[in-house]
Amino acid sequence: MLSQRLLEEVIADAAPLLGGGKVADYIPELAKVPSQKLGIAVCTAAAGVVGAGDYEEPFSIQSISKVFALVQAMGLYDEKELWSRVGKEPSGNPFNSLVQLEFEKGMPRNPFINAGALVISDMLQSRLSAPRHTLLELVRELAGNPHIISDKLVAASEYQHSARNAAIAYLMKSFGNFDNDVDEVLKTYFSTCAIRMSCADLARALFFLCNKGGRLDQNNMLSEKQNRQVNALLATSGLYDGSGEFAYRVGMPGKSGVGGGIIAVVPGEMSICVWSPELDGSGNSVAGVAMLEQLAKRLGRSIF
Amino acid sequence: MLSQRLLEEVIADAAPLLGGGKVADYIPELAKVPSQKLGIAVCTAAAGVVGAGDYEEPFSIQSISKVFALVQAMGLYDEKELWSRVGKEPSGNPFNSLVQLEFEKGMPRNPFINAGALVISDMLQSRLSAPRHTLLELVRELAGNPHIISDKLVAASEYQHSARNAAIAYLMKSFGNFDNDVDEVLKTYFSTCAIRMSCADLARALFFLCNKGGRLDQNNMLSEKQNRQVNALLATSGLYDGSGEFAYRVGMPGKSGVGGGIIAVVPGEMSICVWSPELDGSGNSVAGVAMLEQLAKRLGRSIF
Amino acid sequence: MLSQRLLEEVIADAAPLLGGGKVADYIPELAKVPSQKLGIAVCTAAAGVVGAGDYEEPFSIQSISKVFALVQAMGLYDEKELWSRVGKEPSGNPFNSLVQLEFEKGMPRNPFINAGALVISDMLQSRLSAPRHTLLELVRELAGNPHIISDKLVAASEYQHSARNAAIAYLMKSFGNFDNDVDEVLKTYFSTCAIRMSCADLARALFFLCNKGGRLDQNNMLSEKQNRQVNALLATSGLYDGSGEFAYRVGMPGKSGVGGGIIAVVPGEMSICVWSPELDGSGNSVAGVAMLEQLAKRLGRSIF
Amino acid sequence: MLSQRLLEEVIADAAPLLGGGKVADYIPELAKVPSQKLGIAVCTAAAGVVGAGDYEEPFSIQSISKVFALVQAMGLYDEKELWSRVGKEPSGNPFNSLVQLEFEKGMPRNPFINAGALVISDMLQSRLSAPRHTLLELVRELAGNPHIISDKLVAASEYQHSARNAAIAYLMKSFGNFDNDVDEVLKTYFSTCAIRMSCADLARALFFLCNKGGRLDQNNMLSEKQNRQVNALLATSGLYDGSGEFAYRVGMPGKSGVGGGIIAVVPGEMSICVWSPELDGSGNSVAGVAMLEQLAKRLGRSIF
Repeated sequence: MLSQRLLEEVIADAAPLLGGGKVADYIPELAKVPSQKLGIAVCTAAAGVVGAGDYEEPFSIQSISKVFALVQAMGLYDEKELWSRVGKEPSGNPFNSLVQLEFEKGMPRNPFINAGALVISDMLQSRLSAPRHTLLELVRELAGNPHIISDKLVAASEYQHSARNAAIAYLMKSFGNFDNDVDEVLKTYFSTCAIRMSCADLARALFFLCNKGGRLDQNNMLSEKQNRQVNALLATSGLYDGSGEFAYRVGMPGKSGVGGGIIAVVPGEMSICVWSPELDGSGNSVAGVAMLEQLAKRLGRSIF
Repeated sequence: MLSQRLLEEVIADAAPLLGGGKVADYIPELAKVPSQKLGIAVCTAAAGVVGAGDYEEPFSIQSISKVFALVQAMGLYDEKELWSRVGKEPSGNPFNSLVQLEFEKGMPRNPFINAGALVISDMLQSRLSAPRHTLLELVRELAGNPHIISDKLVAASEYQHSARNAAIAYLMKSFGNFDNDVDEVLKTYFSTCAIRMSCADLARALFFLCNKGGRLDQNNMLSEKQNRQVNALLATSGLYDGSGEFAYRVGMPGKSGVGGGIIAVVPGEMSICVWSPELDGSGNSVAGVAMLEQLAKRLGRSIF
Repeated sequence: MLSQRLLEEVIADAAPLLGGGKVADYIPELAKVPSQKLGIAVCTAAAGVVGAGDYEEPFSIQSISKVFALVQAMGLYDEKELWSRVGKEPSGNPFNSLVQLEFEKGMPRNPFINAGALVISDMLQSRLSAPRHTLLELVRELAGNPHIISDKLVAASEYQHSARNAAIAYLMKSFGNFDNDVDEVLKTYFSTCAIRMSCADLARALFFLCNKGGRLDQNNMLSEKQNRQVNALLATSGLYDGSGEFAYRVGMPGKSGVGGGIIAVVPGEMSICVWSPELDGSGNSVAGVAMLEQLAKRLGRSIF
Repeated sequence: MLSQRLLEEVIADAAPLLGGGKVADYIPELAKVPSQKLGIAVCTAAAGVVGAGDYEEPFSIQSISKVFALVQAMGLYDEKELWSRVGKEPSGNPFNSLVQLEFEKGMPRNPFINAGALVISDMLQSRLSAPRHTLLELVRELAGNPHIISDKLVAASEYQHSARNAAIAYLMKSFGNFDNDVDEVLKTYFSTCAIRMSCADLARALFFLCNKGGRLDQNNMLSEKQNRQVNALLATSGLYDGSGEFAYRVGMPGKSGVGGGIIAVVPGEMSICVWSPELDGSGNSVAGVAMLEQLAKRLGRSIF
């Protein structure tokens, strides 16, 4: 049964894995994060957030932000419009490859690879007057934490190393699948990736994914059907090129970020967030996946 | 609630879709199948098989056979050995592409693309003295139907058009990931694809996938953990290049074949098989997917 | 023997081909060019320029400018430095593909595909204070024509449609093979592509390629060895994805542009420029290639 | 001026390069060749063969055989028929890649990559009753040496390691571009690759390439036009993925083999063969290219 103690045991089991991965270093600011962190938080309707380890320490959510951006876009665009610009299929390629994008005429495979997230950012830019601010506000509301911020140093550092993402955006523009100024969208995108949240924040904020789309504050984020759709996309494409392995080992829809966080959900029951900065070759947290695998096993939970 | 009447309604709802797809015609024998068929069967522990439409008419199971071959291999090889020769990731490419196979040094992405299924066939050939016979016997036992056969004309027709599969097998051989005689394995592989089963047969035979690995005859086919693993792979890679769309629309682990059949499972509850020969651009049955979508909606079932 | 009359016959022979190709229309300004033009000019040490048809009418030189940029870079960088940033091999892909560039880590195959020409522009930008002006001045000197200009409308039109070239430049930047501001280099690049010259201008300007590197005004543009090197690159990579066919049919080093011009050389003897705006599927002038093939046959000239 | 002494100096200049490459080891029989060999032979109409170093020692001609097969096919098929099955463009990829072949629907880029040579072999098989024998007889006649043989051990060793070539052939068969039994054609192909000839043999045998198609025995092998066409293809595609570099450094049409031989021609003047078994990363003889570069420089010969 879910308890603080169980989560502490999960942390303890994962501790020996520290040292077995590699902190993201493609931008200097991310490389500075201490590698030994381990956090886990679970949010249920009954108990709210229970956590263990470094679960209250904010970290860079990075690609987990793609979930927030997607659900925001699902509220602003109708289904047909949205999915005419981004696909729903696993990419089967490393998370930033341009090859597939060129073969598929500028249509990204799904909203969780960089190309897809950039299209989503472009779509948000078209409909929102202050997209950075609006998304940050949404995240604060969802997490019930007005102190959440985007780390300007991280965002600036990512912008300094944005050539590949610029290439992706311009390639989509050349195929007519990118409407706004590339530079402007990149800045918004990096600002969102640079949001800092703790495991507790993220478990709260994404609770709606296990609650038929309903937020902790009782408002609706998604319809029940949309909720299932998002979970389906997370299950097939949420962990970059390790999504199949994650389904095989853990059996939950999830989304990882190169900051070392992973969120996952047991539909109808709980939202979970784990954090440990060292990554495997696919860009997923080594100890994070292990904690989720262990938790799933201990609780006997799997969607499969 | 599940009932014969519900299944008949599902069939009736799907009937208008007939004419909207294309019967597989890459081999002459398959092209001969009447296109207007619609069948659905559901198997539960409580009620056994309930079906509607053409659910008792045998059809060519084609790629659904890849599920039988995989579970058979999981019984003959330990986990590490098995997954050292085939991956667990969605392919993100049309189901017969050689490009990815070359880039990934002869290691197929998963057991449900042709390359992966050929490796599994190769592994079965290495451990079984009569692989064709043994797999057919297993299928008969699982379905409780001793009359199930492999269609020799279809198998021969596939063999006549096997150049691409031979290319795939030889490419893997060139990377050291194929041990037996290519021609011999191809014959076994096509013989297995050419097995003819009805929706009822398939729902029964694959019941173990929703029953913690336990067969209808109470024997164990898989452990509970292995069952979850197979379902995870089906959920991420079971419908060729339409796996993400299927998860999004239907929300069940499933596997399709170009004969127009699709099997799917609600873990812990039921196994389902639908059949309709007309295919969409990804090679999945148009009306079949629609029937599963409708059934999921009517029953309120989804893993997400 | 070379004569005005011979060139007129070559033009007459090519006239029936008009209507068999397609004027470049990827930017509106280029699409406006009348499609029925036919021009040819030959420059020899003995006779200077002899021409026929529309040989004195300026057209957009487009990719022929890549030859000027390359020889300029060969004067500013030593051999090792230059070829550490761009290759010497035929690309074997359509002229603007990003796939190969990604697989080869941002190193373009050769200086005559867009990626390679952008690297060369980037290198010129690093060493010249006013690269646009300097290259235009060089071209004027080489052609002995101070009235040569770059068409601002064409350059602006290309800049408006530059997303793909921006993607290419940013991709190279992401691999560390692009130093300057992408936008700045693109503007220089398009300005150079938009230079307008006649067949007569081009035959004169590139005479050094058949004259051991010596310009018409007796100055040296290239050493004899460098001249051979440039001709070798033109022979293997000068006509996009039709370089092999051009060697097979014509047998001269050459360079084409989507404005419909093609320059070619008979080493030691003559430089040639033909012009006709309709292009084949590889982006080369249909009638232009035919005129060169006919001229080669009539004069009995081929490097092979 | 060409002389025995000059060739000896060329050999001496190349000797320090020994040790800087790697003998082909993808089949055991080839790996056994002593690595320190250096040979050069030049054939002119006036002087016949002049040679130095190990120029009379037979070696495995390997891909140089592709030239013999092509010219044989040019005698059996009309131009249109021949080039409908194989292209004329440089491949821009390593010599045995399947990727391009799949994208281009089974049409090999040119006759000098493996895929193209296999199509040529397939075409010869369709028109000749005893293709292996016929080609060997042709080579003997061309070289004026009835003792030339195909090394059965090498051919058998290649056949043992033929999975990749089989994959290529089956892939082309799947696209309808391969007519005969794959196994049969592979045996013919390897038998031809395994022919053993010396530099002297090869310079004599391919003399027609610098003699308007005329053989040493005065018979015609090719028309003058066909001769230019073959030389054009050699110039753009003869040295695998190092063809551009070879044109840049040497400036002659040529063809290399992984046995360490390279043939080259100065049109109208001489045929040349060099041999040294150590290869560079592109599969071309390190010392062989250097000897040709040096010879071209000393004689002041280049087609550019």
